[in-house]
Amino acid sequence: MRIHFTKMHGLGNDFMVIDAVRQDVHITSDMVQAWGDRHFGIGFDQLLIVEPPTRPEVSFRYRIFNADGDEVEQCGNGARCFAAFVAREGLTSSSVISVETAGGIIELHLQDDGMVRVNMGVPRLQPTDVPFKAENFQPLYRVTLDDDPEHSVELSAVSMGNPHAVLLVDDVDSGLVPVLGPLLESHEAFPARVNVGFLQIINRQVGRLRVYERGVGETLACGSGACAAMVAARLQNKLDTHATLQLNGGELTLSWAGEGHPVYMTGPATFVFDGTVDWEEGQDG
Amino acid sequence: MRIHFTKMHGLGNDFMVIDAVRQDVHITSDMVQAWGDRHFGIGFDQLLIVEPPTRPEVSFRYRIFNADGDEVEQCGNGARCFAAFVAREGLTSSSVISVETAGGIIELHLQDDGMVRVNMGVPRLQPTDVPFKAENFQPLYRVTLDDDPEHSVELSAVSMGNPHAVLLVDDVDSGLVPVLGPLLESHEAFPARVNVGFLQIINRQVGRLRVYERGVGETLACGSGACAAMVAARLQNKLDTHATLQLNGGELTLSWAGEGHPVYMTGPATFVFDGTVDWEEGQDG
Repeated sequence: MRIHFTKMHGLGNDFMVIDAVRQDVHITSDMVQAWGDRHFGIGFDQLLIVEPPTRPEVSFRYRIFNADGDEVEQCGNGARCFAAFVAREGLTSSSVISVETAGGIIELHLQDDGMVRVNMGVPRLQPTDVPFKAENFQPLYRVTLDDDPEHSVELSAVSMGNPHAVLLVDDVDSGLVPVLGPLLESHEAFPARVNVGFLQIINRQVGRLRVYERGVGETLACGSGACAAMVAARLQNKLDTHATLQLNGGELTLSWAGEGHPVYMTGPATFVFDGTVDWEEGQDG
Repeated sequence: MRIHFTKMHGLGNDFMVIDAVRQDVHITSDMVQAWGDRHFGIGFDQLLIVEPPTRPEVSFRYRIFNADGDEVEQCGNGARCFAAFVAREGLTSSSVISVETAGGIIELHLQDDGMVRVNMGVPRLQPTDVPFKAENFQPLYRVTLDDDPEHSVELSAVSMGNPHAVLLVDDVDSGLVPVLGPLLESHEAFPARVNVGFLQIINRQVGRLRVYERGVGETLACGSGACAAMVAARLQNKLDTHATLQLNGGELTLSWAGEGHPVYMTGPATFVFDGTVDWEEGQDG
């Protein structure tokens, strides 16, 4: 079986994209793992598959697999690449694309400047929704480290479908990330573990963000982490309702009108190359 | 400019291969660095370029660039992929291919079983040729670590065009590699630093090899390291003249008839996918 694919990235978060609308492909976990390897395969953070919809009100079904073969619900950087891909391939002529994902229906907007805006959903702030161990919602919580009351940090706890802790810091490059990232990621206050964002406010329209991702470590760009950081900063009135966050891999623009409203994330989607790969039944990569 | 390329690997040492015989391409350092990035680009250890020969006695010129854009002289795993590529592309119908490289002319043999045999050249054993600080050649040298006479190891010093230290060990997986690798790589006895091989003899035909590469760390497969390990083992009569070495990325077969003779290395070359990438003048990746 010969499969055509496209390699893309969103701020360095990189994807293999397969059109399963015009190609008859059945993707197995073996294929994902073999292709995902960066030395023996094609190499990617996630595989994105464009499928025909299973319900009439959407244009596509969008499936996401991690390189280990597990299917996941959501990926903000991947959603931007998905939208740019279906537009380039002529699979849609609409600039507003409704897509069904394992995490629900999402809406993607293709802008005239080539950027893609994604409705990333309504953040959930109740501690039990994050999940985070606290009695009541607060914009900031004090969390003790190493069981030492003298050693604590202040953070916000936000769910964007996945759990986030966000710390406002004076300087994201002061060496905090590799120390506090792993400590907080597996802190007992976050029973499902947590993604940890470190946000430095530059001015009311601009912040600098580094994210230590759950189970992965620091990454180039975490879309849901950027949304969570925007929410945390707005809860403390440190950023305006539209702001740009500078991540390691590049910039995202965020907007959030406040509690009960969705977070909108706008950013680039970059085409890298087009490829064809052969797969034989029984191949183990 | 649209460029066709092929992605290949030799035991996990991975390559972007470009046919510059039938394509009119001028590769710049900017392109190599942009393409070499594993998240923003195509991702590879080395870029291999197939060019027309500049002298009549060879079939091709073969150039090798590291992902940082520097041109290098030799790569054994790359040479196998080079041979398999020119055969698949119909650029040659011969099973013996003479190629000019920045490190001299090399001869590649395409075997009927799909494996490729590479003449890796005659090892140099004089300490000044490695370079290694010692008065005279010995099959084994004792090297003191940490300036502590109580703390020393025995090793062989071999040049395969690049410097290698080889240690015979009882168990390559005992935790020695990450400790002794960096210590020896930058040991004062090796003024140009050194690749460090750890060889466990399984029997006279089979060894298990792990290599800590100079400036890189442990890798999946180091072709010249496998040759150096074969030479070191033969100098101590621990392996037969034909032997298989098991590396992290897979197996290589080595043969060496003794001092003054070249080392022959035989192993696989694997096609992963074919791609096309666009490059605009002024693009910075």
